[in-house]
Amino acid sequence: MAAAKQLSGAGLRGQVAGKTALSTVGKSGSGLTYRGYDVKDLAAQCEFEEVAYLILKGELPNQAELDAYKAKLKSMRALPQALKEVLERIPASAHPMDVMRTGCSMLGNLETEESFDQQQDATDRMLALFPGMINYWYNFSHNNGKRIEVETAADSIAEQFLWTLHGEKPSELHTQVMHASLTLYAEHEFNASTFTARVCASTLSDMHSCVTGAIGSLRGPLHGGANEAAMELIEGMNDPEDAEQKLMGMLERKEKIMGFGHAIYSESDPRNAVIKEWSEKLANANGDTSLYDISVRCEAVMWREKKLFCNADFFHASAYNYMGIPTKLFTPIFVCSRLTGWAAHVMEQRADNRIIRPSAEYTGEEFRPVPAISQR
Amino acid sequence: MAAAKQLSGAGLRGQVAGKTALSTVGKSGSGLTYRGYDVKDLAAQCEFEEVAYLILKGELPNQAELDAYKAKLKSMRALPQALKEVLERIPASAHPMDVMRTGCSMLGNLETEESFDQQQDATDRMLALFPGMINYWYNFSHNNGKRIEVETAADSIAEQFLWTLHGEKPSELHTQVMHASLTLYAEHEFNASTFTARVCASTLSDMHSCVTGAIGSLRGPLHGGANEAAMELIEGMNDPEDAEQKLMGMLERKEKIMGFGHAIYSESDPRNAVIKEWSEKLANANGDTSLYDISVRCEAVMWREKKLFCNADFFHASAYNYMGIPTKLFTPIFVCSRLTGWAAHVMEQRADNRIIRPSAEYTGEEFRPVPAISQR
Repeated sequence: MAAAKQLSGAGLRGQVAGKTALSTVGKSGSGLTYRGYDVKDLAAQCEFEEVAYLILKGELPNQAELDAYKAKLKSMRALPQALKEVLERIPASAHPMDVMRTGCSMLGNLETEESFDQQQDATDRMLALFPGMINYWYNFSHNNGKRIEVETAADSIAEQFLWTLHGEKPSELHTQVMHASLTLYAEHEFNASTFTARVCASTLSDMHSCVTGAIGSLRGPLHGGANEAAMELIEGMNDPEDAEQKLMGMLERKEKIMGFGHAIYSESDPRNAVIKEWSEKLANANGDTSLYDISVRCEAVMWREKKLFCNADFFHASAYNYMGIPTKLFTPIFVCSRLTGWAAHVMEQRADNRIIRPSAEYTGEEFRPVPAISQR
Repeated sequence: MAAAKQLSGAGLRGQVAGKTALSTVGKSGSGLTYRGYDVKDLAAQCEFEEVAYLILKGELPNQAELDAYKAKLKSMRALPQALKEVLERIPASAHPMDVMRTGCSMLGNLETEESFDQQQDATDRMLALFPGMINYWYNFSHNNGKRIEVETAADSIAEQFLWTLHGEKPSELHTQVMHASLTLYAEHEFNASTFTARVCASTLSDMHSCVTGAIGSLRGPLHGGANEAAMELIEGMNDPEDAEQKLMGMLERKEKIMGFGHAIYSESDPRNAVIKEWSEKLANANGDTSLYDISVRCEAVMWREKKLFCNADFFHASAYNYMGIPTKLFTPIFVCSRLTGWAAHVMEQRADNRIIRPSAEYTGEEFRPVPAISQR
C-alpha cells in the first residue's frame, strides 16, 4: 500500500472531499447559494416546492412544472398501514429524530428503491410523506392514541406540516413562514449529515439507507438541534432585562450558548435576517411580542460581549414557538427540509462515484503474539 | 473562509482522515491486525467473544473476564415485544439489510443510549440481540409466521446465530466455523461503513444512529454483499470443468466477478486462507465436496488469468452454504460481526472528537438573480 497522505486539519476541516454543483457556503459576496441563487432571494420569492425542484433537478420550475410537481407530491402523502403500525409502537418518550430515522428505514422495507431510476420518486415520496409521518406519531403518542388523517387538502409541504400537526388548515402567515423556513434549511454543502449520506451513497446503497444515515447524524447535538437548545434558553427568560442578566451569567460561567456563531460563516449567517423578520411578524400577529423581544436582546448581548452573531437556528426558535410547534419537533422539520439537499447530494455522488474509503493513522499496539488464555 | 485544500485522490483514497488504535490493514509484514494481533492467530485461537472484547476494551480477556462477558451477553438476548411487532410487519420480500437497519433503529427508540456512559451496554445489547433479531424476522416472514424463541441455551454469538436460524443446537464444527467467520469480519479500519459510523459519531449522536448508518452503508453492493454475489456465481456452476468454462466466458465478456481482489490488499487477502480451510472441512463433513471443488477451480482460474486472489468473501460463500445459511442472510452475519468494529470506532471518535465536516469543490452555476416565475 502506498504511504497515506497526512491531512493537516482534524475532522477534514477545510479539506476538499469531493465536488458539488448544489450550493456554496460562505463564498465572498454571497453567503449561501443554491445552484447559484442567493438563499435570501429564494426565501423571499419562492415556495419551498420551487426550491426543492431547483435543488433536485437543477433549475427553477416554471408555473406548469411547479403545478405538476406539487400535484405529484400531494398524491404521495398516504402512510402505508405497516408504517402506521410501526409508528404506533414507538413510545411518547422516544427522541423524535429516532422516530424519523426508524420511519424512514421502515419505508425502505415497504417501498424499496430497486434501481437508481427510482431515485427521484423515492425522494418525492419522502418529501410528501415525512411531515405526516412525524405528526402521525406525535399525535398518536402524545394525544391519547389519536390517529390523524394525513391525506389533507394542504396545498404544500409547508401547509401539510402545520395541518397534520394541529389538525386544521393553518393561517396564510404561518404557511408563508414555513415555506421560508424549509427553504433556509434545505441545503448546506458538505455538512456532517450530508457527508454521511454521500459516504453511504458511495457504496451504491439505496436512497432510504442514505437518508436514514443522514437523519442519524443530524440527530447529534453538534449538528441539528441547535434551534431546540435556543428555545430551551429563551423560554427560561421572563423579559429582555432577565435575558440580559441570565446571558451575562452564562457567559461568566463560560456555559455553552446555542444558536450563535457558525463553523463556516465568520461574520454573519445569511439565513438569520430572513427568519428574524418572520419572527417579528409572527410576534406582532400573536399580540405577545415578549419571546421576540427577548431574542432581540440576546442577539444584542452576544454581539456586544462576544462578537457572536445569530445563526439560522436562533430566531427559528421563537418563530416555531409562535406557530405552536412543540420544541421536540424542531429538528424533524429540519429533516423535512434538508432531505432535498441530502437526496440531491446522493444523486450527485451516484452520477460520478468512487467509494469513499479514507485511510487512518495507526496509533495502537505493535504486532504481538496471541497469548493462551491461561497466560493472560 | 480560508481556501480549501484540494486532495489528490477521489473518494479520499489514501488520505488520512483520523487516528485509530484498532487495526492495521495491509501494513507490510502483517495482513490484518486487531490491536496488534494477527487476525489469523485470533481466528485460530479465540472465540469471537474474545475478539469482540479485545476490539471493544483493548485487551484479550482472561478466563474469568471471558466467562463474565459471555454470561452478560447471554442475558441480553430477549427481543422487546415492540421490536418483534415491528419485525412482523416487514415483508418477506424486504432486503434483509433493510430489516437489520430498521431493527437497529427501532431498538434505539426502545432502549435509547441516553449518555455515553451507556455505550458499552448499548453495544453489548446489539451484539447479543442481532442474531436472534434477523432470524426472528426470517423465520416469521419465510416460515408461515413462525415465532421463534430467541432466548436459547446457546453458549456464544456464533452458536446463537445458527441455533435461532435453524431452531436447534448446531454441531461443534459449525459453531467453530462461525466463530472464525465472525472474527474475520469484525474490524477493517476506515472502510466505508465504519467511516459512516465515525462521521455520525462526530456529531455526538447516539450509538444506535451510528450503527444504523453503518448498516445502510454496508448494504451497498460496492461494500457488503460480495459473499452473496460469490454464492450466486458458484451455485450456477455444475462442476469444476463447468466453472472453468463459465468463468472464462465471463472474463471474455469483461463481466464483473465478485469475491476476488481488494481495494487495499495487493497480493492476497489474509482472511482467505482461514475461511478456505474451514470450507474444505465443511465439504468433507458434508460428504458432497462439489461446491468447494468448484470454488477451488475458480480461485485457480482467476489467479492464472488475471492474477486476482480470493478475498475474504469468496470461500465464505461455500462455507455458509454448507451450514445451511440462506444466501440472503450472508450480509446480516457481516453486521453481527462488524458491529464490534463500528462500535469501537464510535467510542474512539467520541474520546477525541472533532465534527467531520469537509469542504467541497464547487462546480455549479455562477451567482444569478431569481427570475419571476412568469419569466422562467
